[in-house]
Amino acid sequence: MTLPTTAMRAFTGTVLRGKDIPAAYRTDRSGYAPTGEPEALVLAANVDDVRRAVTTAAEAGMSVVVRGAGSGLAGGAAAGAGSLILDVSGLNRILELAPADELAVVEAGVSAAALDAEANRHGLCYAPDPASIAISTIGGNIATNAGGLRCVKYGVTGDAVLGLDVVLADGQLLHTGRRTAKGVAGLDLTSLFTGSEGILGVIVAATLRLRPVPIDTITVAAYFDEVEPAAAACAAVLAARVRPAMLELLDESSLREAQDLLGVRGESAGAFVVAQTDGFGARAEADLVAKTFGEFTSRVRVGDDPEAAGELLAVRRAALPALERHGRVLIEDIVVPRSQIAAAVRRITEIAAGYHSRINTFGHAGDGNLHPIIVVPRDDARAYPRAVAAADEIFATALELGGTITGEHGVGVLKRAWLEREQGPAALRTQQAIRRALDPNGLFNPGKAL
Amino acid sequence: MTLPTTAMRAFTGTVLRGKDIPAAYRTDRSGYAPTGEPEALVLAANVDDVRRAVTTAAEAGMSVVVRGAGSGLAGGAAAGAGSLILDVSGLNRILELAPADELAVVEAGVSAAALDAEANRHGLCYAPDPASIAISTIGGNIATNAGGLRCVKYGVTGDAVLGLDVVLADGQLLHTGRRTAKGVAGLDLTSLFTGSEGILGVIVAATLRLRPVPIDTITVAAYFDEVEPAAAACAAVLAARVRPAMLELLDESSLREAQDLLGVRGESAGAFVVAQTDGFGARAEADLVAKTFGEFTSRVRVGDDPEAAGELLAVRRAALPALERHGRVLIEDIVVPRSQIAAAVRRITEIAAGYHSRINTFGHAGDGNLHPIIVVPRDDARAYPRAVAAADEIFATALELGGTITGEHGVGVLKRAWLEREQGPAALRTQQAIRRALDPNGLFNPGKAL
Ligand SMILES: Cc1cc2nc3c(=O)[nH]c(=O)nc-3n(C[C@H](O)[C@H](O)[C@H](O)COP(=O)(O)OP(=O)(O)OC[C@H]3O[C@@H](n4cnc5c(N)ncnc54)[C@H](O)[C@@H]3O)c2cc1C
Ligand SMILES: Cc1cc2nc3c(=O)[nH]c(=O)nc-3n(C[C@H](O)[C@H](O)[C@H](O)COP(=O)(O)OP(=O)(O)OC[C@H]3O[C@@H](n4cnc5c(N)ncnc54)[C@H](O)[C@@H]3O)c2cc1C
Repeated sequence: MTLPTTAMRAFTGTVLRGKDIPAAYRTDRSGYAPTGEPEALVLAANVDDVRRAVTTAAEAGMSVVVRGAGSGLAGGAAAGAGSLILDVSGLNRILELAPADELAVVEAGVSAAALDAEANRHGLCYAPDPASIAISTIGGNIATNAGGLRCVKYGVTGDAVLGLDVVLADGQLLHTGRRTAKGVAGLDLTSLFTGSEGILGVIVAATLRLRPVPIDTITVAAYFDEVEPAAAACAAVLAARVRPAMLELLDESSLREAQDLLGVRGESAGAFVVAQTDGFGARAEADLVAKTFGEFTSRVRVGDDPEAAGELLAVRRAALPALERHGRVLIEDIVVPRSQIAAAVRRITEIAAGYHSRINTFGHAGDGNLHPIIVVPRDDARAYPRAVAAADEIFATALELGGTITGEHGVGVLKRAWLEREQGPAALRTQQAIRRALDPNGLFNPGKAL
Repeated sequence: MTLPTTAMRAFTGTVLRGKDIPAAYRTDRSGYAPTGEPEALVLAANVDDVRRAVTTAAEAGMSVVVRGAGSGLAGGAAAGAGSLILDVSGLNRILELAPADELAVVEAGVSAAALDAEANRHGLCYAPDPASIAISTIGGNIATNAGGLRCVKYGVTGDAVLGLDVVLADGQLLHTGRRTAKGVAGLDLTSLFTGSEGILGVIVAATLRLRPVPIDTITVAAYFDEVEPAAAACAAVLAARVRPAMLELLDESSLREAQDLLGVRGESAGAFVVAQTDGFGARAEADLVAKTFGEFTSRVRVGDDPEAAGELLAVRRAALPALERHGRVLIEDIVVPRSQIAAAVRRITEIAAGYHSRINTFGHAGDGNLHPIIVVPRDDARAYPRAVAAADEIFATALELGGTITGEHGVGVLKRAWLEREQGPAALRTQQAIRRALDPNGLFNPGKAL
């Protein structure tokens, strides 16, 4: 099961084998690495390389692990024994930008940040904004259906995907979807590949929806004494018909850590919420957000100008890096119905106490998507198993509260055991049947996602 | 292949056989009826009836034609020889309405109008608004991924679907999706069943996203000398970053016919556009719409109050009924990239002349979704084949302009021949593989959709 040298020569891009493959390719940002060494790494230069890699791997009896930037948090791009790693980050051209039709066609390796910058030149933007926007690929974003801060108003990655080019297990190129705003011809293959975590085929290009850069953006933040009033304030904002472009919540410890990292002598609080409104109604909506927050706390701040807004947002952005100072972090990603946010945060605090773990929670309150971050101190050997046990209880809590184990990071390897608990045997069987229909020999990412 | 009387007794709902089945059940609103008589009609009273109908049909060697209200325009619910018609319109309870989580759980037979009315009591609405909202079922809306007037801002039916309950070909009940705003666990089965036109399973219930009733709605309309400036005005509105909640266009003849039906001595024009803005920025957006329209015509009208708005919208709503006075209508449903709207309307006018057919075009300019309506006079035997040939040229035009053959009505029986021309062999093969994986014996709607 090695790649013959003749096969290697057929590629335009670079091919490495065995020991020549850099260690970083065995894992992703979750840190998970399977046992065994990958067989080969193909740095694809074009679609033909991708097709060739797929057919070559199939003939050689290898599995294919598609890889974008390897910034995933679920072990999806991790590669072990018997695998050919197919790195598509080299397919990184913006093929077309059509302002009148508000769309772009890009290769899979383009970063969302690069596309957004290009769109900005035409007064347009690419809305999905995972925090990894500058370091991840659009192909990876689509394969994980990545979220971000603006989802609460503008939707997730999938909401911006109009069509895909996909290399299938038999090496054929499939076009899905369309260039139009609407269309219902045939089964929705585009959505099926979106979020499929590399188990159905290799996304090589995408047709993406752009939108106008919103006029006016106003930031409003508030400090609350407890999580409950913070969650209630978020709910009240939504009930007041405001559609914020961002609605983020930090619990007490996340706020403290972030302030600490930033070196600001910030206010202490039981919870911190930062909201943004945008568009033609931004001012009226911001006023209503501030007024509504004011019903739950006296500590409301409005950032009209970019600088003041930047300061309010900086705390949110510092929350994760602040925790990474204390050790390895397990970044969890549950979603609960919005009415259950306060209950979830409280439960997580109890779980942390029960497992003697440091767990800070922040996340997208507008979507009910919470990121409990479990810190595993590097010098404590028993901390890791405790953290894993705590994570399991967090998953159980999400399901008890009517939620899901993953809102944007995916199942990958790390949450596989939980998928059937969330969705039941019929859903799992149905998904396996679809996987078999598209990839009968189990070529793509075996042992992952389902 | 008849249903034994013992099997009939097992159902809670009514079961009819052969000649007892009302003729209306053989067709839908397209008027298409296949040859042969359906074997049985099950008016399901509950989910157990649905499961029983599916397994009974499978055992008896019948096919299953799922039917909502039969308001479809593609022949999807039409039933012929060897079929068991499974009418799920009797499953019509709103099971839950959770205002804080902005969602509802409904059975498949509920109408979107009934759900919207119930949601309104909580200050919420169900956004998808097909013109058939009062006469079709939510299950049918989901199975066709129905559109409507408000899609340009609020999306199509699929954008409101969070999860589904589906009875599969083996009679098992599948739950897909979730109750949360976001979630990426597993393959997106919810989107796969949405728009699947009854070929993958029977949708028996759905978890649906609600949203706040928008504050403020303002209507702006304008008469243009030609289609080109009307299309350019629509494009300019979108480029000015306005997100109208509605942006509808009528060609010259549609306008004239509609005015005629309404008995109004309206202005004549080469094209008529009606827009609506809503939300916190409605006033600012409406002002900008009116100003932008004003760059292309001097005949701009603003409807601030419901009555004035109603008058402007009445013309749009009268367009289809006005044409139905002149004969049977073929309601087409193409979508083109928005930049191609004027070109498409012009081409359709030429096609009408070439085939001596009356074709009026109106549609959702904000989405590029046009409904060319081909009138077939009842007293002209040669008009129907001419109409069909004209429809074929319209489909070809849609594809030439980079568009699709159907934006919201689906493929059904009537557009099957065109699906592969639009999507290519690889897409067709992939869809057939998925169909076989979920329905190996071809139980559901054979000969339709793919
Ligand atoms: C600091 C940081 C912040 C982050 N913030 C967010 C966030 O806000 N929201 C969010 O959703 N995620 C976030 N993530 C997670 C991660 O960035 C996303 O999952 C991202 O979409 C992964 O893209 P990638 O190119 O790195 O994919 P990879 O990690 O390389 O791969 C991810 C999965 O997709 C598959 N895959 C990759 N490319 C393709 C392709 N072209 N075709 C088919 N399958 C493919 C892989 O096999 C794997 O299963 C963050 C990660 C980090 C490290
Ligand atoms: C006057 C008029 C206006 C219309 N306006 C619009 C419009 O604005 N936008 C639009 O998109 N459409 C419109 N339509 C078309 C039609 O109303 C829609 O397609 C509607 O969604 C069909 O719903 P139904 O319950 O009547 O489904 P049916 O006609 O009964 O069935 C349609 C298809 O869905 C399948 N199906 C139905 N129910 C289920 C179920 N529970 N599970 C699985 N499969 C199922 C059927 O097998 C069939 O293939 C209009 C039709 C008319 C007559």
